[in-house]
Amino acid sequence: MKFSINQMTVKQLSLPELVKGCTDLGIEGVGLWREPVREYGVAAAARLVREAGLTVTTLCRGGFFTATDRAERAAALDDNRRAIDEAAELGTDTVVLVSGGLPAGDRDLVAARERVADALAELGPYGAERGVRLAIEPLHPMYAADRCVVSTLDQALDLAERFPAEQVGVVVDTYHLWWDDRIAQGIARAGAGGRIHSFQLADWVTPLPAGVLTGRGQIGDGSVDMRWFADEVGKAGYTGWTEVELFNDVLWSRDGQVVLAETLNRVTQHLG
Amino acid sequence: MKFSINQMTVKQLSLPELVKGCTDLGIEGVGLWREPVREYGVAAAARLVREAGLTVTTLCRGGFFTATDRAERAAALDDNRRAIDEAAELGTDTVVLVSGGLPAGDRDLVAARERVADALAELGPYGAERGVRLAIEPLHPMYAADRCVVSTLDQALDLAERFPAEQVGVVVDTYHLWWDDRIAQGIARAGAGGRIHSFQLADWVTPLPAGVLTGRGQIGDGSVDMRWFADEVGKAGYTGWTEVELFNDVLWSRDGQVVLAETLNRVTQHLG
Repeated sequence: MKFSINQMTVKQLSLPELVKGCTDLGIEGVGLWREPVREYGVAAAARLVREAGLTVTTLCRGGFFTATDRAERAAALDDNRRAIDEAAELGTDTVVLVSGGLPAGDRDLVAARERVADALAELGPYGAERGVRLAIEPLHPMYAADRCVVSTLDQALDLAERFPAEQVGVVVDTYHLWWDDRIAQGIARAGAGGRIHSFQLADWVTPLPAGVLTGRGQIGDGSVDMRWFADEVGKAGYTGWTEVELFNDVLWSRDGQVVLAETLNRVTQHLG
Repeated sequence: MKFSINQMTVKQLSLPELVKGCTDLGIEGVGLWREPVREYGVAAAARLVREAGLTVTTLCRGGFFTATDRAERAAALDDNRRAIDEAAELGTDTVVLVSGGLPAGDRDLVAARERVADALAELGPYGAERGVRLAIEPLHPMYAADRCVVSTLDQALDLAERFPAEQVGVVVDTYHLWWDDRIAQGIARAGAGGRIHSFQLADWVTPLPAGVLTGRGQIGDGSVDMRWFADEVGKAGYTGWTEVELFNDVLWSRDGQVVLAETLNRVTQHLG
C-alpha cells in the first residue's frame, strides 16, 4: 500500500507545511489542488515537492463540462487545458475531473453526460501529448444535480471507454461508490481496461451536514469496508497510490500535522 | 392521472382537515402514515376516509428489517404485522417498506440486504392473507448507511422477485431514483412483473439540508423530469395512483390547505 495524502484533507497546512509533514512522517505521495498550488506558484510548488522527493499522485481538479452556453463551454475547455499544463509542470500524470451538474433549469441528465464526452474528446489528446491522463470521478448520486452528472463507476467507464486508457480513466473513491451493489464488477471492469487512474479513500459518516460537502469521515469512523475496497482494486490489478481525500470541517479545525499523522495511522491500521 | 396526496406532504393538517381539503379539491386518493392514524384511532380513521369516499393509496410505513439482534428482529416483524393489520383495516392494499440501514458499527451491506429478504419471506404471506401487498421503497443512496440499504430500483426488484408479485413489489419514487441511468430499464422490468405497487413524486432541489431528510422539493421546483417518469411507468403498464410525498420544512411551515391546493396544481401543470 503506497499512501498518499490529498492536500484537501489538511487544507489548514500551507504547502511547505504539508511537504514538511510528509517528509517527517515518511509519506511519499501527495495529491494537490489547483487553487493553493497557483497561489503558491506552480513552478515553485513543483520545485518544492520535487526537492522533497514527493510524488504528486493527482492534481484536483478539472471538469465542469456541462454548460450549454457556448462561451462557458469554451472557457471550461481552456481552464482544463491549463489544468493539464499545471499537472505536467508538477510532474503528475493524473488530473481528476468532476464532470459538472445540470445547468439551471435543465433536467436532461443524458444530454449533460454527452457534453462531458464531447469535452473528453477535445481534452484527451491534449493531455496525452503532455503525459497527463484524465480521471473521471463519479460522485455520489446526491451531487447529480449541482456538481456531477456522473454518479456511478459504470457511468464513468461508459464515458472513459470511448477513449484510449492512456487518455481517459476513472477515480475509484470509496466515499462516492461504497453503496453500489455493482461496484465489484465495476472495479474489475476498470482494472481490466487499465483505467483505475486513482484510488481515493474517505469514510461515510452520518448525519450529513447541510450542503453535504464537508462531512467525509476519517478512515475507520464510518460505514465503508476499506479493506474490501483495497482488496478489490488490488485484484483488478491496481498497483498505484492509495490517496486519502477528506472534506471535513472538524478535521480542518484541528492541528493539521496531528490530522496528517492520524490519517496515516488510520490507513495503516485499516489497510496496512 | 389519478392524483393522491401523501399525508406527510401536509402534515400540519389534522386527519379531518386533510379529508376536508381533499373533498373540497376533488382529490380522491390519500396516502396515510401510521403515527397520525394511530393517534386518531385506526378504526375512526378508516371510517373517516371511507365516509368521505377517499381511497387510501398506501400506508407508510413498515420495514426497518436490518437489525442483527434477535429480539430487535422479532419486534420489527411484530410491528410490521401490525402495520399490515392497520392497512387492512384502512382498506388500502399497499404497505410501503423502508428497509433499514446498517446496524451501528456494521459495514456489511450484502448481509443487511439478506436480512431484508428474510423478513419479506415471513411477512409476504401474512400480508397476502389480508389482501395487503408489501412495497419495497428503494431510497436514495445517501440513506444507505442509516435508513435504507436498498438504494436502487434494481436492488429492490432483486429482492421483490424472490416472492410472488401479489406479496412483494416496489415503490417508484422520483426523488430517490431520478439520477439512475438504469431507471428506464428498471421501471420496464418492474412493470412487466406487475410489481409497481406505488408511484410517488417529489422533486430534487439543492442545497440539501442538514440530515438530508426534509429537503424534498415541490413538483416542478427541481431537477426531476416528472413527465418522463410518468410516461415510463405508464409504458410499463402502471395504471395506479400518482402520489405526492414531500418532506419539506418550508412547506410544513405554510398553511396546509394552501399547500394541498398548490401541490394539486403543480401535478396537474406538469402531468395533467
